[in-house]
Amino acid sequence: MRAIDIIRKKRDGRELSREEIDFLVRGASRETIPDYQLAAWLMAVVWRGMTGAELAALTEAMLHSGEVLDLSSGEAPIAGAKVDKHSTGGVGDKTSLIVAPVAAAGGLRVPMISGRGLGHTGGTLDKLESIPGFDVNLSLAEFRKVLEACGCAMIGATPEIAPADKRLYALRDVTATVESPYLICASIMSKKLAEGIDALVLDVKTGDGAFMKRQEDAEYLAELMVATGERMGKKVVALITDMEQPLGRAIGNALEVRECDEVLHGRGPEDLRELCVELAAWMFVLGGRAGAVAEGRKIAAEMIASGAAREKFREMIALQRGDARIVDEPERLPRAGRQETVTAAQSGYLTAIRCERIGVASMMLGGGREKTGDAIDPAAGVVLEKKVGDAVRAGEALCTVHYNWEARQAEAMELLRGCFEIGPEPPLRKPLVRKVIGSVAGAATGAAAKAEARR
Amino acid sequence: MRAIDIIRKKRDGRELSREEIDFLVRGASRETIPDYQLAAWLMAVVWRGMTGAELAALTEAMLHSGEVLDLSSGEAPIAGAKVDKHSTGGVGDKTSLIVAPVAAAGGLRVPMISGRGLGHTGGTLDKLESIPGFDVNLSLAEFRKVLEACGCAMIGATPEIAPADKRLYALRDVTATVESPYLICASIMSKKLAEGIDALVLDVKTGDGAFMKRQEDAEYLAELMVATGERMGKKVVALITDMEQPLGRAIGNALEVRECDEVLHGRGPEDLRELCVELAAWMFVLGGRAGAVAEGRKIAAEMIASGAAREKFREMIALQRGDARIVDEPERLPRAGRQETVTAAQSGYLTAIRCERIGVASMMLGGGREKTGDAIDPAAGVVLEKKVGDAVRAGEALCTVHYNWEARQAEAMELLRGCFEIGPEPPLRKPLVRKVIGSVAGAATGAAAKAEARR
Repeated sequence: MRAIDIIRKKRDGRELSREEIDFLVRGASRETIPDYQLAAWLMAVVWRGMTGAELAALTEAMLHSGEVLDLSSGEAPIAGAKVDKHSTGGVGDKTSLIVAPVAAAGGLRVPMISGRGLGHTGGTLDKLESIPGFDVNLSLAEFRKVLEACGCAMIGATPEIAPADKRLYALRDVTATVESPYLICASIMSKKLAEGIDALVLDVKTGDGAFMKRQEDAEYLAELMVATGERMGKKVVALITDMEQPLGRAIGNALEVRECDEVLHGRGPEDLRELCVELAAWMFVLGGRAGAVAEGRKIAAEMIASGAAREKFREMIALQRGDARIVDEPERLPRAGRQETVTAAQSGYLTAIRCERIGVASMMLGGGREKTGDAIDPAAGVVLEKKVGDAVRAGEALCTVHYNWEARQAEAMELLRGCFEIGPEPPLRKPLVRKVIGSVAGAATGAAAKAEARR
Repeated sequence: MRAIDIIRKKRDGRELSREEIDFLVRGASRETIPDYQLAAWLMAVVWRGMTGAELAALTEAMLHSGEVLDLSSGEAPIAGAKVDKHSTGGVGDKTSLIVAPVAAAGGLRVPMISGRGLGHTGGTLDKLESIPGFDVNLSLAEFRKVLEACGCAMIGATPEIAPADKRLYALRDVTATVESPYLICASIMSKKLAEGIDALVLDVKTGDGAFMKRQEDAEYLAELMVATGERMGKKVVALITDMEQPLGRAIGNALEVRECDEVLHGRGPEDLRELCVELAAWMFVLGGRAGAVAEGRKIAAEMIASGAAREKFREMIALQRGDARIVDEPERLPRAGRQETVTAAQSGYLTAIRCERIGVASMMLGGGREKTGDAIDPAAGVVLEKKVGDAVRAGEALCTVHYNWEARQAEAMELLRGCFEIGPEPPLRKPLVRKVIGSVAGAATGAAAKAEARR
């Protein structure tokens, strides 16, 4: 078998066999196929796409290029359904920190391997690391122990997980081949399935603050991921959710953890709470704890109201060497020395927020990275004082900026001033969850709700 | 400027600016852009193609990545029109060795930089090197001297010529990006224009033995090359010519030189002689020696009949340190020790020859290379005893195989036995020159012949 023949076949739009895809992926992880051949193949995939069979073969080959956790058998099997949640990334998206403890409190096991923020989007690892002492670099053995002890654990990718994806992702990043839905699907699904899960709830963001600006692109990616997961025997559901404005009010790592504390105390922004309940509800459905999504919502709400989820969060933080007191005493989180506000130039209703720009402004303040390896300031970020639909008076604060570094503060302020649109009428309220995709979705939402969810 | 942005732009089907193309080509020749980025860009070009402006910019950038001969000015300007001929490659295509002396005898200057054979096609350099002593590795200064002394000179590409093409070609070869007509055009035209020519006649082969099997692909490539050359101020004409059967009867290096001697003596196969006259005729038109192609044909025929072209061939061989006696004494060329024939299994008419296979068989016998760097046997090859349209009796010889190496001789014979199709009726005779493409073509063929040539 020769790489050039496989490239040529894909270039000409013909379907690759499982053996050909295995050969390529093995060549990627063992470094027996040079970068330039992989790069040409990646571009041919962007061009020609992949069939369902090719995509499943690619995902499986990438998955098995490294270690795959087996949580259900072996020396110390972990009882219960293993269910994870994954988001394609957005601004102010801190749901993982709430959803994992809620699901664990409700009896699921959540083995979550997450990433770091890049560009305008945040990353779960950076948020967790704003908690003093919190260690995201556990070995897989430690990860397993935390998961067993409290039902959820959150770490970064280890070198053992999907090494083929690491090489291919690094290449995609420099060859303009990141955006292919097929390559995105294989990259996400191979890493998630390496966690040894039975089921997965996907939060596929769409709108200005998401990677997929157009809903049809988000839906297409969601369909690919659901089909790929199902082909591999996993239960998968994807929620297409709104990212036209930041989720909740806080953007920036410690600021977001503080907001998670709020939600776990039964308070916090309505949209964030709603999405967390919705995602956890679907996890309960897929994990067999609820027969329908309405029942799943009820369990999720109870886990928050009873304080059980809060307790799980505390446990997990302590087990991962973090200061668990931050759950009830958020003032222990890092706090920026300086604050400034952006105010409204006119009165009316907030009709839109330019979501991606808010993310970029937070990054400029130190809340994120422009490129891999950049330093971040855990305390920096933006807190929205108004959300879309709110009434605003001229001179009133639209957002508060938290910062320590001055380097790009003026630039960030300038950017933020252009982020808010004010009109004479409140805009129509759009649903947060736009669509649910997956073969179990219809059954779980019930016959009546099915048409609605699929609308 | 960043390579990734240029890749992304081409990936999305947008037109690249001259500055962007310059940046890429400079990065290719100076090795400041890594292979994987060039590979991704090449595949994006195969996908999206190029506009005329992009293609001209690419060709020019590749041309100017190295030395460009200036034959018309400088210390020792060479008088007269500099006109070259280039073929896209075929089986038994030895026209360069005849056309260059004919054109030089008719007063043109032919500075020809050629390539080697690969796969089923032969290369001019290999044919020349079968002449004892002939040196194709002249420096550019020596090349110029030979050109000045006798009107034609033939060498291989030097490292100074279009280095960007060398790097890009090596990458294309291993990334399945050879076949793009845009990349083929830029590669050919940048090298040809580096010769410092005023005009160029292109012989674009089509049919089973050519790279472009389909005539429409050959025409498209021809149109790109003509348009690119004209944009750069050169006179260019392309002849789309038949490669459904080998040109002439000889395939294999010394065997082909021997056939060239025949034509230069006023004998030899009809089709070879006809195509050489046609190509030289167009060179005379473009070089201003003839007002119309009919007049060009007359000059070409006279140069052969008078022995003037033969004399030029002798001169050039002597100037390039070869044994010029081979022109009149072809027995001085290397000769294979063994011969064998393939005979007809039935009587009838030869209706088709599988041209590419004949080329592959010749390669197997030692007449060509499977991959760059393979050794060749100058004496090896195939001589057709019958051509398409000839009557054949069962048991009569169809071709004679000349060889010294036995390694793949049986395999070659087996292949040759399947190359000849015999039917009860002679096939319709097809024209050798199928079409002439180029803005001067209409004027030169005359108003009446124009429609015919363009048909």
